[in-house]
Amino acid sequence: MARPIVFLSDYGLEDGFAGTCHAVIARIAPDSQVIDLTHAVPPHEIVRGALLLHDAVPFLPSDAVALAVVDPGVGTSRRGIAVRTNLGIDLVGPDNGLLSLAWDAADGAASVVEITSAVVMVQPVSATFHGRDVFAPAAAHLARGANLDELGPPVDPASLVSLELPRAEVTDGRVLATVIGVDRFGNLQLSARADDLDAASLVRSVEVSGSSGRASAQRVITFADVPVGDLALVIDSWGWAALVVNQGSAADRLGLATGEAIELRVVPTDPGRST
Amino acid sequence: MARPIVFLSDYGLEDGFAGTCHAVIARIAPDSQVIDLTHAVPPHEIVRGALLLHDAVPFLPSDAVALAVVDPGVGTSRRGIAVRTNLGIDLVGPDNGLLSLAWDAADGAASVVEITSAVVMVQPVSATFHGRDVFAPAAAHLARGANLDELGPPVDPASLVSLELPRAEVTDGRVLATVIGVDRFGNLQLSARADDLDAASLVRSVEVSGSSGRASAQRVITFADVPVGDLALVIDSWGWAALVVNQGSAADRLGLATGEAIELRVVPTDPGRST
Amino acid sequence: MARPIVFLSDYGLEDGFAGTCHAVIARIAPDSQVIDLTHAVPPHEIVRGALLLHDAVPFLPSDAVALAVVDPGVGTSRRGIAVRTNLGIDLVGPDNGLLSLAWDAADGAASVVEITSAVVMVQPVSATFHGRDVFAPAAAHLARGANLDELGPPVDPASLVSLELPRAEVTDGRVLATVIGVDRFGNLQLSARADDLDAASLVRSVEVSGSSGRASAQRVITFADVPVGDLALVIDSWGWAALVVNQGSAADRLGLATGEAIELRVVPTDPGRST
Repeated sequence: MARPIVFLSDYGLEDGFAGTCHAVIARIAPDSQVIDLTHAVPPHEIVRGALLLHDAVPFLPSDAVALAVVDPGVGTSRRGIAVRTNLGIDLVGPDNGLLSLAWDAADGAASVVEITSAVVMVQPVSATFHGRDVFAPAAAHLARGANLDELGPPVDPASLVSLELPRAEVTDGRVLATVIGVDRFGNLQLSARADDLDAASLVRSVEVSGSSGRASAQRVITFADVPVGDLALVIDSWGWAALVVNQGSAADRLGLATGEAIELRVVPTDPGRST
Repeated sequence: MARPIVFLSDYGLEDGFAGTCHAVIARIAPDSQVIDLTHAVPPHEIVRGALLLHDAVPFLPSDAVALAVVDPGVGTSRRGIAVRTNLGIDLVGPDNGLLSLAWDAADGAASVVEITSAVVMVQPVSATFHGRDVFAPAAAHLARGANLDELGPPVDPASLVSLELPRAEVTDGRVLATVIGVDRFGNLQLSARADDLDAASLVRSVEVSGSSGRASAQRVITFADVPVGDLALVIDSWGWAALVVNQGSAADRLGLATGEAIELRVVPTDPGRST
Repeated sequence: MARPIVFLSDYGLEDGFAGTCHAVIARIAPDSQVIDLTHAVPPHEIVRGALLLHDAVPFLPSDAVALAVVDPGVGTSRRGIAVRTNLGIDLVGPDNGLLSLAWDAADGAASVVEITSAVVMVQPVSATFHGRDVFAPAAAHLARGANLDELGPPVDPASLVSLELPRAEVTDGRVLATVIGVDRFGNLQLSARADDLDAASLVRSVEVSGSSGRASAQRVITFADVPVGDLALVIDSWGWAALVVNQGSAADRLGLATGEAIELRVVPTDPGRST
């Protein structure tokens, strides 16, 4: 059986971009199952795409080929690459950092090639749609059993464009983070992990400060641990700290979007009260 | 061959939620075909999800496993269940009513289990994403041939949370209904069936009253039976009465949304005219 | 193995329309892979759907069955048809022009039938959802190996509704075109090909005039050939001339939408300057 392909892009579903890549894959590897991780990465947002791919790695089939395209430099000299990870998953896409958090999550890049084979690509190769003409066919060839070196010559992994996983600044009683994603429900994913919150003793009542003011939140396990409409701080299902509202939108409540800074502080105990 | 999985949720396609569930299924049941019914159920709208699943039942493959997740109570004590229907279709999702209209449409629940098997679930189980960690793997195990009782212990069907199919109030010459759905085209689906309209003698000219005023409509068979831009009352392809505009949006025309009340009346014959 | 089905419609993904068609196909041809080209054709826009299908033809599997539904005349006397093209691809959908640019791209219609077989259709056939009840099952029967004539009686290809591929008006130094599509990135696809631009000597600096004013653009190969934020004229990956902004939206920049006229002119050389 052919290997499954997991496909992420900023192509959206409004046009035929993602669908045509599927069609190209079906021409080359008709037995391969193509799983759409998402095509709604905001246009050109490489970091967001890299994070989504990173978070998905632990849940992918062990023989998956991940095809990822967020590619503002399409048609320039930026390389197209295929990466075999130490976990066994392959990654295919532009060498612009998009794949780099995923190979970190997959125990590192074992070997890398630049995709240059004219036989692999859909000819004539367009200047503006390498998802269809370069990356989808390269992934399809891997899915049907091609070796990495059939796609092109080896590349030194140290020469690849890499991103850093976003981090938080942690001090006692305080975490300074950025919003790294806002999902459909308005949950705000933060650049902090459970360890960061614990290190700052953010374990119960928290004060949240952002560009548009302050709010109080309880650190809890799941949405429904606070009343409907209340703000809460949870560890989300990908391991990130997240501000959420039970059956509501934390993004709307706090007026925050991706990229904005946020401060979480332990709520000072009122000395006049004993609890 | 593995059984097909039909997947409905309120996860949207903006994030990686639905795609990651697909990936988890591919790890467990790589031969199973996963059909996305829709992931655009409005967030937390259990009734809307239940209706969409109910309407789809007659069109599903006879061996389908329906995986449905609209789950505001994720991480609380609400149960996760798998239901074998008398029609042979299995249903997997939270015990919050979401599946209940579908088992009604599938000749009733024959047997039910609570999903508790640690072996079935993706470990560690998160507190906020049981679609990925509980329901998708449970559906995948059924798709590859597991028995229902491999998922967990039996549950008394009478103990399940159930919804009532929305109904209309019918009197002579008058139907009082609610808007149960608005589709992409702006068609307003009503909580009334052909029988209700017939019982109220709503067979030709109809006066429609809603929160934002009145309008006239003709009861016809299809959109194009009225001029472009005209309002019509039809029985839609799921058997519900629907207000539609030929090549336009009834929702825009009438200013109505899901959940609002609507009254349909036979247009009184003008005594001064003979027709 | 069953033939793949490539599916395009204006059903959107908000409702269960496209998903239910998938389910119906899985009942009839469970081995057929269904590729969603797009379901985001704007409601009732037959020409847009026809262009998207036309552009995709060169990239489809050679044995594909293309299922296309943009069908404002559903339930009227407009015919449902299946077309075998000289390229070998089959096309299934309403006889309203939607399929016509695709059969042009697939070397013409070799034989055509009207879909009338009661055995092929899902019974009872609704008046408003022939995608589910007529076209999806017809495509599925072809995918699993049915002959064209099992769907219904032959139709004279000359009797079919046909569209013309949009064209540009070309004079020396000037191309008059219309916007035929706006994609997710805000790229404006124009009714002109590379030959048209070359014939008008639009090879370098270009003045763009539309309903909301004028702008300057460079004709280049790809987005990144101009600075971020600059307007450029390229030949897109489907062979159409397109106005684009590097990492921005040409639609926003120029305030233009599908259907609007646009004029491209060679920028007159300033006689006072020598370059």
